[in-house]
Amino acid sequence: MFREKIKVLDCTIRDGGLINNHDFSLDFVRDVYKAISASGVDYIELGYKNSKRLFSETEYGLWKFCEDETIEKVIDGVESKTKISVMVDVGRVDLDDVKPKKDSPVDMVRVACYVKDVDKAIVMVNHFADKGYETTFNIMAISRDQGPDLDEALYQIEKESKADVVYIVDSFGALYQESTEDLVKRFKNKLKTKEVGFHGHNNQQLAFSNTIEGIIHNANYLDATIYGIGRAAGNCPLELLMGFLKNPKFDIRPILDIISKEFIPLRDKMEWGYIIPYAIAGMFNEHPKAAMAFRKTKDKEDYRKFYEQIRDVAAD
Amino acid sequence: MFREKIKVLDCTIRDGGLINNHDFSLDFVRDVYKAISASGVDYIELGYKNSKRLFSETEYGLWKFCEDETIEKVIDGVESKTKISVMVDVGRVDLDDVKPKKDSPVDMVRVACYVKDVDKAIVMVNHFADKGYETTFNIMAISRDQGPDLDEALYQIEKESKADVVYIVDSFGALYQESTEDLVKRFKNKLKTKEVGFHGHNNQQLAFSNTIEGIIHNANYLDATIYGIGRAAGNCPLELLMGFLKNPKFDIRPILDIISKEFIPLRDKMEWGYIIPYAIAGMFNEHPKAAMAFRKTKDKEDYRKFYEQIRDVAAD
Repeated sequence: MFREKIKVLDCTIRDGGLINNHDFSLDFVRDVYKAISASGVDYIELGYKNSKRLFSETEYGLWKFCEDETIEKVIDGVESKTKISVMVDVGRVDLDDVKPKKDSPVDMVRVACYVKDVDKAIVMVNHFADKGYETTFNIMAISRDQGPDLDEALYQIEKESKADVVYIVDSFGALYQESTEDLVKRFKNKLKTKEVGFHGHNNQQLAFSNTIEGIIHNANYLDATIYGIGRAAGNCPLELLMGFLKNPKFDIRPILDIISKEFIPLRDKMEWGYIIPYAIAGMFNEHPKAAMAFRKTKDKEDYRKFYEQIRDVAAD
Repeated sequence: MFREKIKVLDCTIRDGGLINNHDFSLDFVRDVYKAISASGVDYIELGYKNSKRLFSETEYGLWKFCEDETIEKVIDGVESKTKISVMVDVGRVDLDDVKPKKDSPVDMVRVACYVKDVDKAIVMVNHFADKGYETTFNIMAISRDQGPDLDEALYQIEKESKADVVYIVDSFGALYQESTEDLVKRFKNKLKTKEVGFHGHNNQQLAFSNTIEGIIHNANYLDATIYGIGRAAGNCPLELLMGFLKNPKFDIRPILDIISKEFIPLRDKMEWGYIIPYAIAGMFNEHPKAAMAFRKTKDKEDYRKFYEQIRDVAAD
């Protein structure tokens, strides 16, 4: 009932870090790493590798930089087969700061980019591939970028890049299962030598079902987070994905334990999940930033006001 | 982009009533009725029509009985095109207590039944149809009843009943989109003269996506509730469904208003939604009652304990 090629990547710390400036404590990240390792999940992504020349260490936590020394402290002494991933953004990393794979605890580097940045991203992906890392493209905001430029980007990625995987990233939580099916088929069709991945956002409670839709159409790299933590509405809940996959290599119980012990109390301090302004942003295929700003105003529960505001922006 | 035949039924008060013994105040129900009417939703279901000889008025609220006089108080003076629905269970209603449609504010009677009760349910449906009501079968626990008995029941319903609609009810929140697709196609194939409906439960965050799957395969009657309220994990959120349907006859804003004003505070007093033991029950295709009982114990956040308990029950 399961497909051996399917790989699950937990990005709890990386996407969750977008809510708290990547400022999780080292102990918390170790607990997550232990749970992910014990549950048999294939990859864990700990954050971004950003240049300290561009971002301040006083403003951002450890997981904005993901230095090898920090990662060593996470994994030290923990029995694990889980591979380590970090994400990089176009133009925000000093390529020369990244050591070769053989000298680093990192296994995979994922390059996040928009369709328009694909040339720059190819240079980056090939740089990391040449250093020995597994590599991916994570094409963001895909619900806004489904025209011929996407086909051109995919053609170029297939022809010029050394990436192992190309991800569909539904940044706005705007995809439905039919649009997901269409995109996965299009990626599979253009990317004969790459795997296809899916990263959903849960604005409309569709991150899990869109991930299943990806599985049905042969996406083999699947992103999820514990208890769905992540920016704004969050992501596909890892526990649901494990329940669906029924792969005997996975054990859901360490994930249930850490939800009980850490994520239920954490949810009282950090906000993510099914929250109406994020749902509205998803319906309008808009970036969640307007909703995130609205949630910081005194009108945060005035959903009609937000709806009319975003409707008028969308109509501009 | 929309299909005119699609009818949306709001069952906020009926399914939400399963959490609080059907004890919503008359004022609250009037507010919901006003919002549903203003938003253009096709039907509203207010509760069950149960016999007062079987259930005590001290133990249950008004919406366990849904007397015509009570319903008159809800709708009095409200401008509305929304039709009124009530649900009946096999063996719990005095058929003779129900007046003919022409003397009642009720438009539709929905008969909830299991596959094994279909003979009794046909008698009831035909009784209500003869009295002038629109009628439906709501076949519960369908994820457990997908064998040849289901085909036989559908054959009999098509041949012997006067029902307008036959609903697939995913009582356990256990269906995925492939199983939903399979069921809707099977219902459409067997029920040439009836419409097909879908009622999801949200244990695995799939109620909305399964409803979309129903739409794709021509289910035209769709149940939803405001902010997803309903027993255990709740139902398909009405606001998401309206955002998807994009039918110009609907206005989402009255629903957003009532979520802001009534459902956000209500959620602090009544529990429904994405709660891990309900998700686990859905994964195991089990009735939510074990999870509902577990949520009342001191171990209610010990998800591993619940998982191991239900896994052992499922393996028995």
